[in-house]
Amino acid sequence: MGLQDLRIVNFIGQHILSVDQFGRADIERIFEVADRMRPYAERRRITRVLEGAILGNMFFEPSTRTRISFGCAFNLLGGEVRETTEIKASSLSKGESLYDTARVLSGYSDIIVMRHPEAGSVAEFAAASRVPVINGGDGPNEHPSQALLDLYTIRRELADKDRAVDGLKIALVGDLRYGRAVHSLVKLIALFDNITFRLVSPPELALPEPYVAILKAAGHAVEPVHQLEAGVRGVDILYVTRTQEERFPSQEEADRYRGLFRINQDIYTSFCAPSTVIMHPLPRDSRSGARELDDDLNSNPNLAIFRQTDNGVLVRMALFALLLDVADKVDDQAREVPWFTGGREPE
Amino acid sequence: MGLQDLRIVNFIGQHILSVDQFGRADIERIFEVADRMRPYAERRRITRVLEGAILGNMFFEPSTRTRISFGCAFNLLGGEVRETTEIKASSLSKGESLYDTARVLSGYSDIIVMRHPEAGSVAEFAAASRVPVINGGDGPNEHPSQALLDLYTIRRELADKDRAVDGLKIALVGDLRYGRAVHSLVKLIALFDNITFRLVSPPELALPEPYVAILKAAGHAVEPVHQLEAGVRGVDILYVTRTQEERFPSQEEADRYRGLFRINQDIYTSFCAPSTVIMHPLPRDSRSGARELDDDLNSNPNLAIFRQTDNGVLVRMALFALLLDVADKVDDQAREVPWFTGGREPE
Amino acid sequence: MGLQDLRIVNFIGQHILSVDQFGRADIERIFEVADRMRPYAERRRITRVLEGAILGNMFFEPSTRTRISFGCAFNLLGGEVRETTEIKASSLSKGESLYDTARVLSGYSDIIVMRHPEAGSVAEFAAASRVPVINGGDGPNEHPSQALLDLYTIRRELADKDRAVDGLKIALVGDLRYGRAVHSLVKLIALFDNITFRLVSPPELALPEPYVAILKAAGHAVEPVHQLEAGVRGVDILYVTRTQEERFPSQEEADRYRGLFRINQDIYTSFCAPSTVIMHPLPRDSRSGARELDDDLNSNPNLAIFRQTDNGVLVRMALFALLLDVADKVDDQAREVPWFTGGREPE
Repeated sequence: MGLQDLRIVNFIGQHILSVDQFGRADIERIFEVADRMRPYAERRRITRVLEGAILGNMFFEPSTRTRISFGCAFNLLGGEVRETTEIKASSLSKGESLYDTARVLSGYSDIIVMRHPEAGSVAEFAAASRVPVINGGDGPNEHPSQALLDLYTIRRELADKDRAVDGLKIALVGDLRYGRAVHSLVKLIALFDNITFRLVSPPELALPEPYVAILKAAGHAVEPVHQLEAGVRGVDILYVTRTQEERFPSQEEADRYRGLFRINQDIYTSFCAPSTVIMHPLPRDSRSGARELDDDLNSNPNLAIFRQTDNGVLVRMALFALLLDVADKVDDQAREVPWFTGGREPE
Repeated sequence: MGLQDLRIVNFIGQHILSVDQFGRADIERIFEVADRMRPYAERRRITRVLEGAILGNMFFEPSTRTRISFGCAFNLLGGEVRETTEIKASSLSKGESLYDTARVLSGYSDIIVMRHPEAGSVAEFAAASRVPVINGGDGPNEHPSQALLDLYTIRRELADKDRAVDGLKIALVGDLRYGRAVHSLVKLIALFDNITFRLVSPPELALPEPYVAILKAAGHAVEPVHQLEAGVRGVDILYVTRTQEERFPSQEEADRYRGLFRINQDIYTSFCAPSTVIMHPLPRDSRSGARELDDDLNSNPNLAIFRQTDNGVLVRMALFALLLDVADKVDDQAREVPWFTGGREPE
Repeated sequence: MGLQDLRIVNFIGQHILSVDQFGRADIERIFEVADRMRPYAERRRITRVLEGAILGNMFFEPSTRTRISFGCAFNLLGGEVRETTEIKASSLSKGESLYDTARVLSGYSDIIVMRHPEAGSVAEFAAASRVPVINGGDGPNEHPSQALLDLYTIRRELADKDRAVDGLKIALVGDLRYGRAVHSLVKLIALFDNITFRLVSPPELALPEPYVAILKAAGHAVEPVHQLEAGVRGVDILYVTRTQEERFPSQEEADRYRGLFRINQDIYTSFCAPSTVIMHPLPRDSRSGARELDDDLNSNPNLAIFRQTDNGVLVRMALFALLLDVADKVDDQAREVPWFTGGREPE
């Protein structure tokens, strides 16, 4: 464990722009707070600690899932959400700089989540903001809350099997070249000890060299594999990704890889250990030509993909609570939930 | 009254997908709860019974009116609303299945309202949802809360004249073939006794035979009429519909029916009983070529079209309260309204 | 001061459609309430006076800034916001009249803010609304809350220098022909005494004659100038505008004026008094060809453009509080803010 791994961020009032900000102790702090959010996210208790606070949920690129997840996380803490969902409607389309947009919008809300199609845009925005900014995805660059929720899920799924993250064997399957989620996730996992990264992709969609270098420098095992069946053998976690077709130079090139690696229950039964946990950053592509993760896995109890999205709410609640310094006030005056929640079994 | 008509749904935790779910006793239960919502909808009292709850208002097809109506109904009960307004921005456009969308979104909110352009899509979504789902319109198929608010309005308008729904004479005017609102409404009214359905449309836009069969099987009088003046004579309720131009095979075909049947004050005075109540599912088409319900009726006290939309809030509040089992808790700790509401006369 | 200037509007339950509604005493009343909103907008206190109230934030034309500003203002008073952001999704696109839209939407919320691309549309909507309506911009016509926040900013900036609005020297720079913000602002300032209006524009983009006539009739000095350096000399306020390219007959014509008048720090240092306050209705166009207000002014403490947008929240809170008659109840049961706001320095 290097010095970086011990780094402890004082979260209060900070921006969350990149997974590079975190050391292992920071991750543990976020996850510890996320754990305490579970009774609220599962509607066993209500908190109103952020009543009166406003989240500016600024999505300058379409996204339903991430936007709603952040918005619900803020609502579950008692706060209000104002949002935008497109770049066309914004002053950015009239030539306004990100600096100006940030100065203006940060006068309206207590905290901002921003998604924008251009790499680096959220950091530029945050530099001018007067309130904390969380990067909700800046194009091909970063989406730190996704990596955090993925790692949080890995940690919980392993804990359910009395395992720690240290010593983990993980197979990353599919488009490792363009997959932003994979890039951020491997950097986070690398903060732990003694990891085996099985990199399962066509050679052209391999994990870019800088990421491989980071993993190796941290002393982890890196095993590139170009064949699915060999790649998935004996791992604890199978992290499958959609081909990021929209990031390819052309649709023709994207088509060459569609449906190349497909996990289904047969493959799982034949080649995976029976306790192997299946993850995916979602959405998975269920069209007939794609199906990187077949629907016939839906009844497999080790399919953790919806536990991942559920966990996203916890992790985002934790980030809000830490940045706004209410992590220790959440339970004050918490109440029982008066409405019916019985049909709402967790995943 | 058949067995079906006595059916009593236990609303708690259920999905509302179709008017076919309801028997007469269920309708009466919904309407009894809706009546109790009136002081809150008319801002004479405030309730916070759903404070901390989140509605996922998922509109994968444009709609301002229905979306805002559901959202306000949830706000009036004290809950929060997260929403989406288009299909393009969603993961559905990246090949995600409705199953996946439902598993994900139902982890975020306590209840979901969903509109989607495809028939059957909301039921498919609900089957995978972990929380109750209300169908906010699935293309040409169902829009049960519209039928409920229409029937609730009929019941109230008749009650104001000391009349019951049993024995009702109603004229349905216009596009009875493509009008989803009409299809659902006639099925609900058919649960009552001794109804006369005057079906006023061009032959090509007649009520489809399966609906006619339902009405006849329930013992009601069904009178197809192709001429407006004869059709509106002597009825209690005149339910006028817009030509559903967007559902026609071609615009040319739609144009043949535009403006064919027009109700205005002259027609009303000449052919309707003076107590005839005028309804319309809205929007009405006020362009010069259309005008199925003329603006000169706006001062007619029997024009109930805006009372219909007001009632929509009551009915939707009732559905939320029943599904989440707070119908009997709404009045707990209800408060006075501290702001000015004097300019807010009801319709 | 004429009779008009003494006019006192009873704000309760009224519509805010035009700056023409206000006399000087009304302005003072709005600003006095706005001043009292500052602790809430700056998150030093929380009020919940409008808890349970709903704003219908109806934007039938794209706008992020104004929409979010109104929404946050309502949230800061404790109320909820339901909104729409486009005309396509609305029933207006199916031929519905503004009358119908207003009757329907005013049954959902306690107050409505409306933006619409057509001049006069908001007034037409308000005439049919059952709740107060605030004009959030009706095309080239009016945007009264913008003029109010501009004047409020002028008043505060001058007060910081121990000056009053009476006796003000203001230079209006740029597109004075199509700039809606300028038109409304000059009418408001004209309610004060002894103003000098320096009108700095190309001859073709001069302030339209009717506005000049109003200023002269009120006894103010009007000085048209076609050269930037001469225009900005010796004024207290420099109000710079973007060329309203979207309102020009053609893009070619708009291009002729792009970048014609540019204020930067050099110009400021060379020609302006050192206390001159710089304002802009935003967005400013930061593309290389435009830059009517250069980014190198961002560190100039007299650049008040972000104080303007901050003040917009105060003024909109004041309008809501006055129309809904809670201006004197805002401080009841106000609470401390429990979350971290230390990073949130005001502009």
